[in-house]
Amino acid sequence: MAPSTPRLVVPIDLKKKPWEQILPLHNRWHPGIPPVAEVKVGEVFRVEMVDWTGGMIKDNDSAIDVKTIDLSSVHYLSGPIRVLDEEGKPAQPGDLLAVEICNLGPLPGDEWGFTASFDRENGGGFLTDHFPCATKAIWYFEGIYAYSPQIPGVRFPGLTHPGIVGTAPSRELLNIWNEREREVEETGLKHLKLCEVLHSRPLANLPSTKGCHLGKIQKGTPEWEKIATEAARTIPGRENGGNCDIKNLSRGSKVYLPVFIEGANVSTGDMHFSQGDGEIAFCGAIEMSGFLELKCEIIKGGMKEYLTPMGPTLLHVNPIFEIGPVEPRFSEWLVFEGISVDESGRQHFLDASVAYKRAVLNAIDYLSKFGYSKEQMYLLLSCCPCEGRISGIVDSPNAVATFAIPTSIFDQDIRPKTKVPVGPRLVRTPDVLKCTYDGNLPITKNPSAMT
Amino acid sequence: MAPSTPRLVVPIDLKKKPWEQILPLHNRWHPGIPPVAEVKVGEVFRVEMVDWTGGMIKDNDSAIDVKTIDLSSVHYLSGPIRVLDEEGKPAQPGDLLAVEICNLGPLPGDEWGFTASFDRENGGGFLTDHFPCATKAIWYFEGIYAYSPQIPGVRFPGLTHPGIVGTAPSRELLNIWNEREREVEETGLKHLKLCEVLHSRPLANLPSTKGCHLGKIQKGTPEWEKIATEAARTIPGRENGGNCDIKNLSRGSKVYLPVFIEGANVSTGDMHFSQGDGEIAFCGAIEMSGFLELKCEIIKGGMKEYLTPMGPTLLHVNPIFEIGPVEPRFSEWLVFEGISVDESGRQHFLDASVAYKRAVLNAIDYLSKFGYSKEQMYLLLSCCPCEGRISGIVDSPNAVATFAIPTSIFDQDIRPKTKVPVGPRLVRTPDVLKCTYDGNLPITKNPSAMT
Amino acid sequence: MAPSTPRLVVPIDLKKKPWEQILPLHNRWHPGIPPVAEVKVGEVFRVEMVDWTGGMIKDNDSAIDVKTIDLSSVHYLSGPIRVLDEEGKPAQPGDLLAVEICNLGPLPGDEWGFTASFDRENGGGFLTDHFPCATKAIWYFEGIYAYSPQIPGVRFPGLTHPGIVGTAPSRELLNIWNEREREVEETGLKHLKLCEVLHSRPLANLPSTKGCHLGKIQKGTPEWEKIATEAARTIPGRENGGNCDIKNLSRGSKVYLPVFIEGANVSTGDMHFSQGDGEIAFCGAIEMSGFLELKCEIIKGGMKEYLTPMGPTLLHVNPIFEIGPVEPRFSEWLVFEGISVDESGRQHFLDASVAYKRAVLNAIDYLSKFGYSKEQMYLLLSCCPCEGRISGIVDSPNAVATFAIPTSIFDQDIRPKTKVPVGPRLVRTPDVLKCTYDGNLPITKNPSAMT
Amino acid sequence: MAPSTPRLVVPIDLKKKPWEQILPLHNRWHPGIPPVAEVKVGEVFRVEMVDWTGGMIKDNDSAIDVKTIDLSSVHYLSGPIRVLDEEGKPAQPGDLLAVEICNLGPLPGDEWGFTASFDRENGGGFLTDHFPCATKAIWYFEGIYAYSPQIPGVRFPGLTHPGIVGTAPSRELLNIWNEREREVEETGLKHLKLCEVLHSRPLANLPSTKGCHLGKIQKGTPEWEKIATEAARTIPGRENGGNCDIKNLSRGSKVYLPVFIEGANVSTGDMHFSQGDGEIAFCGAIEMSGFLELKCEIIKGGMKEYLTPMGPTLLHVNPIFEIGPVEPRFSEWLVFEGISVDESGRQHFLDASVAYKRAVLNAIDYLSKFGYSKEQMYLLLSCCPCEGRISGIVDSPNAVATFAIPTSIFDQDIRPKTKVPVGPRLVRTPDVLKCTYDGNLPITKNPSAMT
Repeated sequence: MAPSTPRLVVPIDLKKKPWEQILPLHNRWHPGIPPVAEVKVGEVFRVEMVDWTGGMIKDNDSAIDVKTIDLSSVHYLSGPIRVLDEEGKPAQPGDLLAVEICNLGPLPGDEWGFTASFDRENGGGFLTDHFPCATKAIWYFEGIYAYSPQIPGVRFPGLTHPGIVGTAPSRELLNIWNEREREVEETGLKHLKLCEVLHSRPLANLPSTKGCHLGKIQKGTPEWEKIATEAARTIPGRENGGNCDIKNLSRGSKVYLPVFIEGANVSTGDMHFSQGDGEIAFCGAIEMSGFLELKCEIIKGGMKEYLTPMGPTLLHVNPIFEIGPVEPRFSEWLVFEGISVDESGRQHFLDASVAYKRAVLNAIDYLSKFGYSKEQMYLLLSCCPCEGRISGIVDSPNAVATFAIPTSIFDQDIRPKTKVPVGPRLVRTPDVLKCTYDGNLPITKNPSAMT
Repeated sequence: MAPSTPRLVVPIDLKKKPWEQILPLHNRWHPGIPPVAEVKVGEVFRVEMVDWTGGMIKDNDSAIDVKTIDLSSVHYLSGPIRVLDEEGKPAQPGDLLAVEICNLGPLPGDEWGFTASFDRENGGGFLTDHFPCATKAIWYFEGIYAYSPQIPGVRFPGLTHPGIVGTAPSRELLNIWNEREREVEETGLKHLKLCEVLHSRPLANLPSTKGCHLGKIQKGTPEWEKIATEAARTIPGRENGGNCDIKNLSRGSKVYLPVFIEGANVSTGDMHFSQGDGEIAFCGAIEMSGFLELKCEIIKGGMKEYLTPMGPTLLHVNPIFEIGPVEPRFSEWLVFEGISVDESGRQHFLDASVAYKRAVLNAIDYLSKFGYSKEQMYLLLSCCPCEGRISGIVDSPNAVATFAIPTSIFDQDIRPKTKVPVGPRLVRTPDVLKCTYDGNLPITKNPSAMT
Repeated sequence: MAPSTPRLVVPIDLKKKPWEQILPLHNRWHPGIPPVAEVKVGEVFRVEMVDWTGGMIKDNDSAIDVKTIDLSSVHYLSGPIRVLDEEGKPAQPGDLLAVEICNLGPLPGDEWGFTASFDRENGGGFLTDHFPCATKAIWYFEGIYAYSPQIPGVRFPGLTHPGIVGTAPSRELLNIWNEREREVEETGLKHLKLCEVLHSRPLANLPSTKGCHLGKIQKGTPEWEKIATEAARTIPGRENGGNCDIKNLSRGSKVYLPVFIEGANVSTGDMHFSQGDGEIAFCGAIEMSGFLELKCEIIKGGMKEYLTPMGPTLLHVNPIFEIGPVEPRFSEWLVFEGISVDESGRQHFLDASVAYKRAVLNAIDYLSKFGYSKEQMYLLLSCCPCEGRISGIVDSPNAVATFAIPTSIFDQDIRPKTKVPVGPRLVRTPDVLKCTYDGNLPITKNPSAMT
Repeated sequence: MAPSTPRLVVPIDLKKKPWEQILPLHNRWHPGIPPVAEVKVGEVFRVEMVDWTGGMIKDNDSAIDVKTIDLSSVHYLSGPIRVLDEEGKPAQPGDLLAVEICNLGPLPGDEWGFTASFDRENGGGFLTDHFPCATKAIWYFEGIYAYSPQIPGVRFPGLTHPGIVGTAPSRELLNIWNEREREVEETGLKHLKLCEVLHSRPLANLPSTKGCHLGKIQKGTPEWEKIATEAARTIPGRENGGNCDIKNLSRGSKVYLPVFIEGANVSTGDMHFSQGDGEIAFCGAIEMSGFLELKCEIIKGGMKEYLTPMGPTLLHVNPIFEIGPVEPRFSEWLVFEGISVDESGRQHFLDASVAYKRAVLNAIDYLSKFGYSKEQMYLLLSCCPCEGRISGIVDSPNAVATFAIPTSIFDQDIRPKTKVPVGPRLVRTPDVLKCTYDGNLPITKNPSAMT
């Protein structure tokens, strides 16, 4: 082994279930989940991970697995990993942990992924009121490129990244999370503006023993019961990083994570071959298993030095990121705009979420004019390297959001033509109709085939 | 004159007021404002414009002009310009007008700009509850670069663009606007989520004869009175484009604007030397006078062909943009993250505006550690080429927004250091303390001077 | 005038000849040419310039002007400009002069340019043995873009730059130049390897009073006679910078020029709207008149600090450059390769010039398959933003050079197709056949028209 | 195995010698070397390869292995690989073989490389007259990044690529190669211009049975003897591609290779973690073992369709390349210039090789002012992602070449400073003095240590 070959600290055997791994995975945030590995600063180490569903979604013809998935047990994370300084002492609360992503990719022998939208009754997504049914697209990789039999005529290089990287919360921080999320769950409706359009999506995902996995802690023990009742779900990004879904967090990037407990106890998972800003379909990246090669540094006292609390306690902070130098280069972008007026024509006040929704809907509708179904474009725009921007946030009453699509991912010219071409439109019937609604309807743009 | 010298169709004399120009400017949207010029498709023409305040903000030592500005008469637009096809026939409702920005820049002899934040009682801005006082920074240009005596140690190339480009609304579209904005103004509070933090900002800016300018229509005439009472304010971006504030709409970009009335009647204004995504300080770009060199094409029937109504009528559409090939190249970015938990610790549901606010506050606080006051950074992040992204919009309950700053605009290394440097921090006292609060307090990072 | 409006130090009146300008131009390098203007460090100033031929090439239908041009009087330079430090003292020999290009562009009212290849008997070019006749293409500008009636189907953004920027040589340096160039002229043939293919090109251009212009020095005076006999021609780049033709020296770039005489006496000219690496056709950029906005700094003693003599005296140095942040962004490149085997099949030893020639010929031949004549492509590849690289220079006996073309400058897909398309090839007959051979033959790809 | 897992067609066992591999390697070009594998168009397959020396250079403290290396047996290639179309028929002479590089990287467990310069008496390099002794630097990889104990303060992302990819020559093409190279070897000196400076480098490397490896053909057999006597050496790039050393031929790139014999018989090797344009030190890339994931297409009759003979036969062609979309992004470059005047002050006529040499020497000397020895910089500029350009090739008598270095690869600011900093210069003594001259002198910039 060459001096710079990374040490494998969390191995994955894809033939085993997430909870059967030698170093068992976890799917909750809690300070009591014991570390499964230790690394030293400066050392490059390798972490392997299952896809976020732990293998529940299959490379096959039907979306029935998406429709029926149990979302209580997803986001299997590799770790926690305890980080030591040069002298072997663990990182301390108040430090900042710099995690550099030296390399990453799919697991050898498992070079494929999936993008899916959940059923409205089972998690939904950003546009669940427009696309209420489960859909699924499979992506195959050719090195840096991905293509999908369900979305023909599209191929793009991945900007691969982990959806989740985070440190363990302290007990105090965990309490803050549970309290504020319980409040939104309980009293949410009266405070909510998006409620009409998003009414069937869960307002929060509170701690639940159902589907809980806690790594080395044996299920059924009193310790397990206690932690499972308290431990935070992994769905949202929070002060510890977590499910940030920052699509540019790829090779050469660095994350500066706050350290809340001794050792930092960093966990990671939810690898994405590619994702669009917003990850709109929810299961919206190209989800896959994968590996990370990481290197850590500890910035002693770095939280105080570099982070500023953005709330009532010193714990209300957020990570900082540095983007790496190796990103796919796109030179031409088609940009769609949205304002904070919803589909019913109702004006909202400087609401970037509404504006973003409208920009995305504009993009989907536009692209569906080029031979695609809207479902195909919903999945595509969720996982291809689109950029979602907040362009204007001050011009009452309209927020302006933009959604930019690199034109070169298509094998046809999707820009508006000054001379509208005559003749029949291209129809992009999928090669294989394996992407389905509700488990039995194929995606196809031919309406007669959809009855 | 060479064959390709653009014809000047809207000249500006900077020694005159906006309403004294040979081709008088307008600051409302209305189908009844008559065109001041005509152009043919394929022709490159030049449009000059005043800064958005029409010269009310001066290159001097005090922010008193910002504090006392009358916002009823801003956004002086050049135009409307009527667009004809090859045969001399005007663009028709239902067409799409492709406007290419061939070139743009400051007006010769007027190479400076300003960035300001308004007083909380007079328009405010995205962070008005944090920065309630009027502030101002002056920027001088050195070709492609801008620097400010008020924010020393910073210099960056501009990504110059017009804040406003739009077509005239039809009467029907104007009615839709007035109706939905009136509703938010009247019934707004009960629907609003951001109300607590933004309570002093206007919910909408309804038509008002005060400060109204209607181009060639004589003030005081019955026609003026009628139009002034109906005409839409220019503050928000809407279906016709308008105040989109898309910072990448620079040289070589193309806008596809819907045509609502005969001739399209396109107007433009509000030139920005540079702007950050979101234009957070409201008067937040580097505002300047300037010129555009434009070329139009008409896509006959293009609205139906390329745009999809996103609301109850065929008029609920948005423009499409293509980004140009010449943008400043930054290779290193420092990225701040925000989640939809506000400064009081309250959880919001997938609210990208709250998440964005937190990301921006994180960035301001971080940079203030490098010798700057927070006011300096509020203005800087509003006008420098920052990218504001919606990274995650589906992971209940947290939206994740990111705010990326190109590190090379600073003359110091602003990245976190693994070894925290010892010794006193740099203090970036402005060279000239001309940027003031409330007209009398200097911007400085010395807290004692700020009481 | 705003504080940052650049002071115009060298104005040009395009209605006058180069030698009739208020501040008369010069076309030789000599320490005795007196400065026409003075600038201070830190000041942004504006220099205007004629095109390199001083208006001899016209925007018309014939290449007769190219065929008959007198090359003894070209390269009219604006300057010399004397540079003073903060205290008003001139730059000293041994200093380094940092010249920043803040902005640049065509002169208003003169937005067009030309690309030409000279007749073999009159200067020739890199491929003169393949293209022995004079040809000309006219380019019109649409803001950042150029297009040519002679080369239809092509449009690209310019990376505008001055072909020439240099300081005045000292007498000692001038002697070195004259001596070494005289040697190559006199004894050249026996040392030359490229002689067979380039035999009709001048080996050097030695001082000559014919066509000489020396700025303020009156023609016919003894001083003029003396200087004209000694002064170096401007054709080659040398230790003082001069005709470097570095295509990336655009907005925001910086040149560090050695100072050889008091005041530095910097001159500039030969503006290019765009150029390919190598400028193969000799008059090969898009040549135009233009303006520069510059800012100087003096690095005291910088020559010793930063430059290393590369020859027998301390004067054998070269300038250093920093590339600016604003270049057109191309994402797809088609790359042609050449090795140091010439067209006769003869092997040359690690000769990058031969390899480059072959790479360029490969590119021309390839593109001529897409409906163009080879002459059209010779001119295009000379002026469009191509990159010419020395890829391998050590693998005996073959040097490998590459020549990369951005594919998006064409309105058709020029990449090889896996499925060779059937049907007739597109023929790109020029819209207007004004580009001619020997003044009377049109460029066209139809061979029968070319007899 | 997922559907898109590449099939491994050429495996490498690093514990074995190149000629002991299951599919034995070859280091000559000849149509008679039998294929070791077959692939179909459209299939993604994996090829592993040893480093170009087959493991002769070790990760240790001494350059003695570099000094004494036997260059007759280098460039071990993996292959030949026979390519079949959809119907199983082999590629035919006259076809074009499109080879896409889907992915590539170091072999797992072997993540390190080396850069070296050979002794003047043993191969030398581009600057062998300046750096006549053998030197060596070891590079370790941290994912996308490389760093060297011998060149501290430098770290950069690799633009990894195969130095060699080529098809088998036909017998006719092989004869052409051998004839023209024999001519340069035999009659070379009188035709050569670079001879004075490069006199100790071999003019050509003619066929030689010494060190010859021919894959499956048994050494000592009559067949082996015959082929070994005829087979071309792999050092230079030629019509079949071969040792092109094009540093941008990385992930997502495509090579269009001419097919000269049935099946195309493509071979590849000489993986580089990174290389500068020119690969000046000869063993100048970061040399390593590695893998490629490739996909082939056959363009039937593509040679005639797309390539143009550049010599007396139809075989005088060169490959075409398309650059991939994933390259490291550098925004700031420091550019050094060279003109065709050599170090003795002698003028050469438009000689790009001389100009390039001077540009590189300027760069080395400049960087040596920042605490490095010139030997360190010679190795660094040979392997880091520098760009070498032919900027001007027509301005008699000077060719102008430029050499651009991305500034961010250094941990200090290497740009010239307007205010020259006072105080002692940084000295970059290598951490470990393992890089040596002649096997016994350490690289260090401390002159006293170098006597």
